[in-house]
Amino acid sequence: MLISVRVIAVYDLPQQSSLLLMVEPPLVGPVHRVKEERLVTTPTPFNELGKDVYGNPLRRIIASEGLFAFEFRAKVDTAPNTDLDDDAVEHPLQEIPTESMVYTLPSRYCQSDLLARMARREFGQLPSGGRRVRTITDWVRQHVEYQYGTTNAKTSAFDTVTERIGVCRDFAHLVIAFCRGLGIPARYASCYALGLEPPDFHSVAQVYLSGVWHNVDATTEAVRPALIPIAVRRDAADVAMMTLWEMGKLREQAVEVREIAG
Amino acid sequence: MLISVRVIAVYDLPQQSSLLLMVEPPLVGPVHRVKEERLVTTPTPFNELGKDVYGNPLRRIIASEGLFAFEFRAKVDTAPNTDLDDDAVEHPLQEIPTESMVYTLPSRYCQSDLLARMARREFGQLPSGGRRVRTITDWVRQHVEYQYGTTNAKTSAFDTVTERIGVCRDFAHLVIAFCRGLGIPARYASCYALGLEPPDFHSVAQVYLSGVWHNVDATTEAVRPALIPIAVRRDAADVAMMTLWEMGKLREQAVEVREIAG
Amino acid sequence: MLISVRVIAVYDLPQQSSLLLMVEPPLVGPVHRVKEERLVTTPTPFNELGKDVYGNPLRRIIASEGLFAFEFRAKVDTAPNTDLDDDAVEHPLQEIPTESMVYTLPSRYCQSDLLARMARREFGQLPSGGRRVRTITDWVRQHVEYQYGTTNAKTSAFDTVTERIGVCRDFAHLVIAFCRGLGIPARYASCYALGLEPPDFHSVAQVYLSGVWHNVDATTEAVRPALIPIAVRRDAADVAMMTLWEMGKLREQAVEVREIAG
Amino acid sequence: MLISVRVIAVYDLPQQSSLLLMVEPPLVGPVHRVKEERLVTTPTPFNELGKDVYGNPLRRIIASEGLFAFEFRAKVDTAPNTDLDDDAVEHPLQEIPTESMVYTLPSRYCQSDLLARMARREFGQLPSGGRRVRTITDWVRQHVEYQYGTTNAKTSAFDTVTERIGVCRDFAHLVIAFCRGLGIPARYASCYALGLEPPDFHSVAQVYLSGVWHNVDATTEAVRPALIPIAVRRDAADVAMMTLWEMGKLREQAVEVREIAG
Repeated sequence: MLISVRVIAVYDLPQQSSLLLMVEPPLVGPVHRVKEERLVTTPTPFNELGKDVYGNPLRRIIASEGLFAFEFRAKVDTAPNTDLDDDAVEHPLQEIPTESMVYTLPSRYCQSDLLARMARREFGQLPSGGRRVRTITDWVRQHVEYQYGTTNAKTSAFDTVTERIGVCRDFAHLVIAFCRGLGIPARYASCYALGLEPPDFHSVAQVYLSGVWHNVDATTEAVRPALIPIAVRRDAADVAMMTLWEMGKLREQAVEVREIAG
Repeated sequence: MLISVRVIAVYDLPQQSSLLLMVEPPLVGPVHRVKEERLVTTPTPFNELGKDVYGNPLRRIIASEGLFAFEFRAKVDTAPNTDLDDDAVEHPLQEIPTESMVYTLPSRYCQSDLLARMARREFGQLPSGGRRVRTITDWVRQHVEYQYGTTNAKTSAFDTVTERIGVCRDFAHLVIAFCRGLGIPARYASCYALGLEPPDFHSVAQVYLSGVWHNVDATTEAVRPALIPIAVRRDAADVAMMTLWEMGKLREQAVEVREIAG
Repeated sequence: MLISVRVIAVYDLPQQSSLLLMVEPPLVGPVHRVKEERLVTTPTPFNELGKDVYGNPLRRIIASEGLFAFEFRAKVDTAPNTDLDDDAVEHPLQEIPTESMVYTLPSRYCQSDLLARMARREFGQLPSGGRRVRTITDWVRQHVEYQYGTTNAKTSAFDTVTERIGVCRDFAHLVIAFCRGLGIPARYASCYALGLEPPDFHSVAQVYLSGVWHNVDATTEAVRPALIPIAVRRDAADVAMMTLWEMGKLREQAVEVREIAG
Repeated sequence: MLISVRVIAVYDLPQQSSLLLMVEPPLVGPVHRVKEERLVTTPTPFNELGKDVYGNPLRRIIASEGLFAFEFRAKVDTAPNTDLDDDAVEHPLQEIPTESMVYTLPSRYCQSDLLARMARREFGQLPSGGRRVRTITDWVRQHVEYQYGTTNAKTSAFDTVTERIGVCRDFAHLVIAFCRGLGIPARYASCYALGLEPPDFHSVAQVYLSGVWHNVDATTEAVRPALIPIAVRRDAADVAMMTLWEMGKLREQAVEVREIAG
């Protein structure tokens, strides 16, 4: 499928600011390939695309005081998103790549240490594998209400598991925390999703089963037709569209994801 | 200096368990070199030394139900630990290696997002550099009481900054959170320390100034004579001597660190 | 002084709902007397004014599904608000009325147990009395930034002491928590304040010194010209203008407090 | 039944300290009557028995620096503890005494505001009444593991609902938070319980149904043969055997509760 992506955003910065921008998917991923892309920003003293410790593209910018705006456009060829197979297998410790071990440990928003006992009590007796992960995502979808504007940048899986309300970010964090609590490597992916209404950035969990990473999306029973990962890391602390150390206000943002007649 | 290290520990596992063991320093570090080492464990179905995503040695073990014990001995040649220079410089974003950017982001125990405003208010007006980091470690030492047994595996920098009591782990987490809140890369190092009384594992913060990582230890005004890092990562969630996903009880542990006549 | 008060609010209730409404000041308080008042609501199956365990007026309403609106108007004669005297004295335990002891204990939003060590370290060495309480309110005003919309119904003193931002509710909670941590009875008062811009409900702390309760308002260095307490209890969990157990949305609210030519 | 109670405790106080002691049951309760009692303490500058705002006996003591010890002995005649009747009815708002409304609001350890959505989702569809409360206590007993030493004075219902481990205090807090989340008045009672092994202070929830307060104890499926309430309030923040504002260490404690041949 050929997907067209467009993002614009405007920020107001009270002083010169360092920021990370994560809107550019890797040029080539397991199921996608970027055909064209263009990032335009207001002039900045520094602007560089590098690679982080997890292998994600990482754009670092120093922006001047005042308005900072950018527009990102891309055309991406991607295979359709597929559902997790019930028979996908969980790996014992010795089969997990050492560089993926970090995805079994707790992180800022996925306190799997605190949720482990609950994960074992709720899901520990189920046969391991894709079916168990699906039971977890079903549990999250059935127990947590999806509602815009109910959570914020402080909300973590430890909150969501009890408060039972949130958005895609919160759903993904809770799935990740449960999976890690069972020893299943799980990570957070921000992505462009086809068919989201209203259009916005999307987030899903990824789990490591049968030797590959699978998207699992607790916000929907159906399978999103296409998901293009922008960045995958431990949780939303590592993968924000924009990370700012200093103050700054988002003034405006629009995301557009469309299928182009193939 | 030539340092001799010895650790023994015994665990009781109610079932076959996966675990990570981090007691073996890298063979060569910036200021140390392991001369001899030996790890002996009770027999295990699986036991392998690999490397994690951050470049640390990572030993993974699957241990059978019942008692699991290990003994680790090493002789390590190390340069003495040195104090952070007041004139060490903080780096602007563009000079921080991309792979170190992760150490500017919040993590499980170092919620620098929540502590950033306080960090800026307390330390933001100071001239940047080694002196500022020293002011932070002094603040932590002067405001937090050191006392064994007052905190636990749930305690984070967000707790410590208010509750004002803890151990080396808590001191390191708070220093790290403040530094990240100011945009200074900071990470957590578990280590063998010479001169600790009673002997135990030790933890310190490391900050990236003048292009290298420096140990900073808020638990003492003096400089520890020797510090041998075992593992360095984002915080104690990544760097536990032992990580267990299943239940398990520590029965016994002893650590010994001595200088050997050189 | 003669003060005129007017509140209107409109709620949307998805089902028949029980609610507590606290907008009516007691008819007579230590420094005020209500001259006229009138509460009008949309028709309700049940509507009753009683008295709670702390002696506050407590209006209980069962409202039907759909829109629920009320208007409250009052004229209140009050002495001007006065500043806390530096020489006001703290009471040792035996001089505090037993029914006020509850205001020395931790509550939902004022976790004085967690803040006690910090309170003792920051303020414990100061001479006791009104001056010490003023030092606490000054500390709060100088360390916490006042900004609308930055906190919510979950925010507690334990958050505010580190996050350093909030509104009058958060300022009052933090003052209360510090005072209780030092053994000073402190409670939360919602009130009508003259001169607030924009007009809104206001909250202040009250501390028990020299045998009476004093308003202390960390949001301003000056003294509010008039403060009419509506309800005083342990913290905002007990004193919300509106408490709803079921869902419900505030659609509209306006508060008006004016001095009437005497 | 005639019950004999004995408590001894020894504290080490680093300075003269104010403290609340709650070990003396009210002389007459709904189902008990104290026949004899005696409290002996090491000499104290101040020692007085009063009554708190909720009507509980409240002993206030100022104790000198050093060891503070007390012994309390009592003989209490009590009716056997009875099980909550499935048919006990929940009251609509207008039938709850105004002075009991406070027990529908959140408190330090029972954040019913945060747990309300979960309470409604898990228990909101059940027919109201004693049976529903029993379903809640069964849920707590079946989902939370009882284990000494796993929680501490910071642990709240919000922790326990996810961490799934704790002691009687934690079980009671969680029951209370769920009930309040449904609008059922619920409070915390510390008590002497017959048949506890090992003997210790005990805590249970009390719920207001059919116009009276009922003990509900999620730690056991059976009914404790006798429960003598010492103090009932909002949660353990209000009802600690001992409340100390300054530092102090418990050195020793023993509790003994026996049935005396009637």
